[in-house]
Amino acid sequence: MPGTDRTKVSLSGGPPMILCRPQRAENIGSAARAMLNCGLTEMRLVSPPDDWKGEKARNASSGADALLDGARLFATLAEAVADLTHVFAATARPRNIVKPVITPRAAGVALRALVAEGHRPGFLVGPERFGLENDEVSLADTIVTANLNPAFTSLNLAQAVLLLGYEWLEAGNVAPETTHLGRAEEPATKEALMGFLGRLEADLLATGFLANEGRRPHTVRDIRAFFQRARPTGPEVGLLDGIVRSLSGRNKRT
Amino acid sequence: MPGTDRTKVSLSGGPPMILCRPQRAENIGSAARAMLNCGLTEMRLVSPPDDWKGEKARNASSGADALLDGARLFATLAEAVADLTHVFAATARPRNIVKPVITPRAAGVALRALVAEGHRPGFLVGPERFGLENDEVSLADTIVTANLNPAFTSLNLAQAVLLLGYEWLEAGNVAPETTHLGRAEEPATKEALMGFLGRLEADLLATGFLANEGRRPHTVRDIRAFFQRARPTGPEVGLLDGIVRSLSGRNKRT
Repeated sequence: MPGTDRTKVSLSGGPPMILCRPQRAENIGSAARAMLNCGLTEMRLVSPPDDWKGEKARNASSGADALLDGARLFATLAEAVADLTHVFAATARPRNIVKPVITPRAAGVALRALVAEGHRPGFLVGPERFGLENDEVSLADTIVTANLNPAFTSLNLAQAVLLLGYEWLEAGNVAPETTHLGRAEEPATKEALMGFLGRLEADLLATGFLANEGRRPHTVRDIRAFFQRARPTGPEVGLLDGIVRSLSGRNKRT
Repeated sequence: MPGTDRTKVSLSGGPPMILCRPQRAENIGSAARAMLNCGLTEMRLVSPPDDWKGEKARNASSGADALLDGARLFATLAEAVADLTHVFAATARPRNIVKPVITPRAAGVALRALVAEGHRPGFLVGPERFGLENDEVSLADTIVTANLNPAFTSLNLAQAVLLLGYEWLEAGNVAPETTHLGRAEEPATKEALMGFLGRLEADLLATGFLANEGRRPHTVRDIRAFFQRARPTGPEVGLLDGIVRSLSGRNKRT
């Protein structure tokens, strides 16, 4: 289904597409092809297989080699999202984690609006077979779920990438109609937010709040889910940092 | 990207998907998977390769075997479309043939309307490499072309099938696109939130964070604005309360 040449498609690259722990090289190649179909050119890979840009990937990319050659590798998802302000994750609805869930269509519109406002959103797609782990989901702000045949919902990797990219492209003709937050209210970078969360968790370990090792991962996940969803601005992260420092007495200790 | 179970998706089968002279068995399997993702269950094949429902196709179908087993074979496209009233073909823009050209989105809406009026429309997708021949295009009423990256428009077979099926499904979806907050995700009452904020502010007075009387109203307003906007759930307010109590050492003091 080739496209027309009459449409104005921005080739500036669009938001990054992060593939987290993809399992098969040919799926990475197919995802690159789907991305380029939709004008998305920035691929990020978290722990891909060794042959991620080998022959299988190149064959499947059908000419989108440049995306494979330009892909950036990360050891962890946290590093891959560090510079982003909003992460939209295509994954199964997470259990026990509070996240907004929207359709690919709504996601396309939302990302266009965020980019127009100067933010840095990105897409995230989990591994083929098992999806994202809870710790990874906690790094996402929003879950993207297509309304598919409820008896058969599992899309392959490249198809999930295609739907995200396609709706991003389709949304390009839609004027953004979001609430303007204003310049001062830009969400903090993921790096700043994770720095705060790391200091908070260290303090909570010191005060005994995370003493129960069995419950600790669950509690940490709940804390991260809340602050991710709250999307504090840069100044708010500073405020939260100050609050935690004051409460924990670190001002006096140091 | 699994779908939700709350959406009403008709499983009556939808319009037939005709694959004309597909070249590779795995693409037929992937197309079956994409069809079933979208609730389309009637596959028609014109001159497929000999191994069209062999192991490669079954592996690629990821469990959509029933579509392969139920597929109907035809020697020519004319026979495959004989019982249909309208044929929507995803193919390159034909030369020297005058046909209306619409997007997948418009096609989804058009097919829904035709079915509602009692007609029998169908989708048609051409071979992977060369597209439909002119004699075959002449059997189509309407050409379906997605507005893709003009520099890289070629979709693979299953992806073309997915976009057609996805837009067919979307055109019938009555589910809202907006954020779903599930049962467990209800925001806490304002009373619970204000209770938390009151305790937090008392602790911050005690630790000296709000010692500057001139700045205090401004800082309190910023704290309240953040937590109001974050809309914590009831359990999250409990978590935040526990964090503040632990950090401030109130657990020990009381």
